[in-house]
Amino acid sequence: MSSKLRLGVLASGGGTNLQAIIDSCQDGSLDATIALVLTNNPDAGALERAHQAGIQTVCVNHRDFSKREDFDHAVVKSLQDAGVELVVLAGFMRIITQTFLDAFPLRVINIHPALLPAFPGLHVQQQAIDYGARFSGCTVHFVDSGVDTGPIIIQAVVPVYQDDTADNLAERILEQEHHIYSRAIQLIAEGRVHVDGRLVTIDPPCPPEAMALVNPGLDT
Amino acid sequence: MSSKLRLGVLASGGGTNLQAIIDSCQDGSLDATIALVLTNNPDAGALERAHQAGIQTVCVNHRDFSKREDFDHAVVKSLQDAGVELVVLAGFMRIITQTFLDAFPLRVINIHPALLPAFPGLHVQQQAIDYGARFSGCTVHFVDSGVDTGPIIIQAVVPVYQDDTADNLAERILEQEHHIYSRAIQLIAEGRVHVDGRLVTIDPPCPPEAMALVNPGLDT
Repeated sequence: MSSKLRLGVLASGGGTNLQAIIDSCQDGSLDATIALVLTNNPDAGALERAHQAGIQTVCVNHRDFSKREDFDHAVVKSLQDAGVELVVLAGFMRIITQTFLDAFPLRVINIHPALLPAFPGLHVQQQAIDYGARFSGCTVHFVDSGVDTGPIIIQAVVPVYQDDTADNLAERILEQEHHIYSRAIQLIAEGRVHVDGRLVTIDPPCPPEAMALVNPGLDT
Repeated sequence: MSSKLRLGVLASGGGTNLQAIIDSCQDGSLDATIALVLTNNPDAGALERAHQAGIQTVCVNHRDFSKREDFDHAVVKSLQDAGVELVVLAGFMRIITQTFLDAFPLRVINIHPALLPAFPGLHVQQQAIDYGARFSGCTVHFVDSGVDTGPIIIQAVVPVYQDDTADNLAERILEQEHHIYSRAIQLIAEGRVHVDGRLVTIDPPCPPEAMALVNPGLDT
C-alpha cells in the first residue's frame, strides 16, 4: 500500500466531480489515490469513468436492502475493505446516516453547489436565481448529521447573471467545483486541515487574494 | 429644484455610509442630491457630517412619541416636505413599518453587511465567523416588510480570513459598502433599476467580471 491518502468516492450519477479528482490524481496535483468508486446505481456514469481509469468499483444497490441500516453497513464494509481513509461524496444521492458517520468520523466530505449557508438542499441553482442573489458558488464541507450544515473547508464564489438559467449557473459553478474539491482533498492529504467545532483551520494558512467581487459591476 | 434624484438619508450612528454618499455626490460620480439627513438620535455623528456638507438635517426623536405610528408619520412628513424621492437607510436603528413603506413604495433601500440570504439580522460579521463561512460581503436591497429580505439590487463579496475578528471583517466589508451603496443609488437615478417580484433587473445590464474567488486560495 502506498503512503498516499486512500479515497473512496461515492457517486450516483455522471461523475464529473469524480473525473476531476481522477485527473488531479493523474496529473500529480493531488497526492491521493482512489481506492474505490462506490455507487448505489448500476447505471451510474461514474462506473465507466472509474473503469477507464483502472479504479476498483463496487455497486451497492439500495434496492437490494430492505433495511436502511443494512445498506449502510454494506457500504461501510466495502469502504473499509478497500482501506479507504477519506470518503468523498460526489453526487451520491443517498442520505448519509449516523451509522456511516460513526465509521468515518470527520472523514466524510461533500461538495454542494451553493455558497452555504445560503441555499442548502436541492435545486439550489434555481433557488439562487429565484431569490435574486447576485452571487452563488460551491462549498466543500465535512458531512455531519444535518443537511449541508457541516464545517466548511473551502468555498468558491461566482456571479449570478441576471439572464442566467439554472443550467448556465450550474455550469459556471461546476467549473469551480472541479477546482476546489481536489484542492480540499489535497489539503487533507497534507495534514493541514484542522477542525474545532464547526471552524476549519488550514495550517499553514493559504490566504485568498485580498480582493472583492461586485455584481452588477461598478462600470457602465 | 434640480432634476437630480432627491435622497433622504436616515442614520442613527456615525454615518460612514452617509459620508460615502456625500463624497460621491460631490465628486460627480453620483447624480443625486441629499435633500435631507434624518436621524432619531440627537447625538448621531451623521448630523455633524451633514452640517459640514451643508445638508439640511432633522432629528425626529422616537422618545418624543408614545405611539410608533406617530413617529412614523412624523418621519414620513419630514421626508415628504423635503421632496425626498428615494429613502436611503444608512445605519438607521429603527424598524421600518408598513406605514413608512406605503408612503415610499419600492423607494426605500438599505445596505446590509452580509451576503444575503446568508446572515440576516444583527451581529452579522460574528455570525459569519462563527459559522466558518469563507466568504461574506454586503447587499443593497429594497426594503420590504421582512428583516433583510427585500429584492437585491447589488452585492459585493469579500473573503473571510481564518484569523478574522468581527472588527477586521466589518472593516473589509465596509470598504465595499462605500462602493456599492452609491452605485445602487446611481443605477436608480439613471432609471435602470426594474423590480419584478423579488427579481431586480438592471437595464442595460452591467455584467460583473466573469471570474471567481476561492478561499482558501488555490496556491501553496
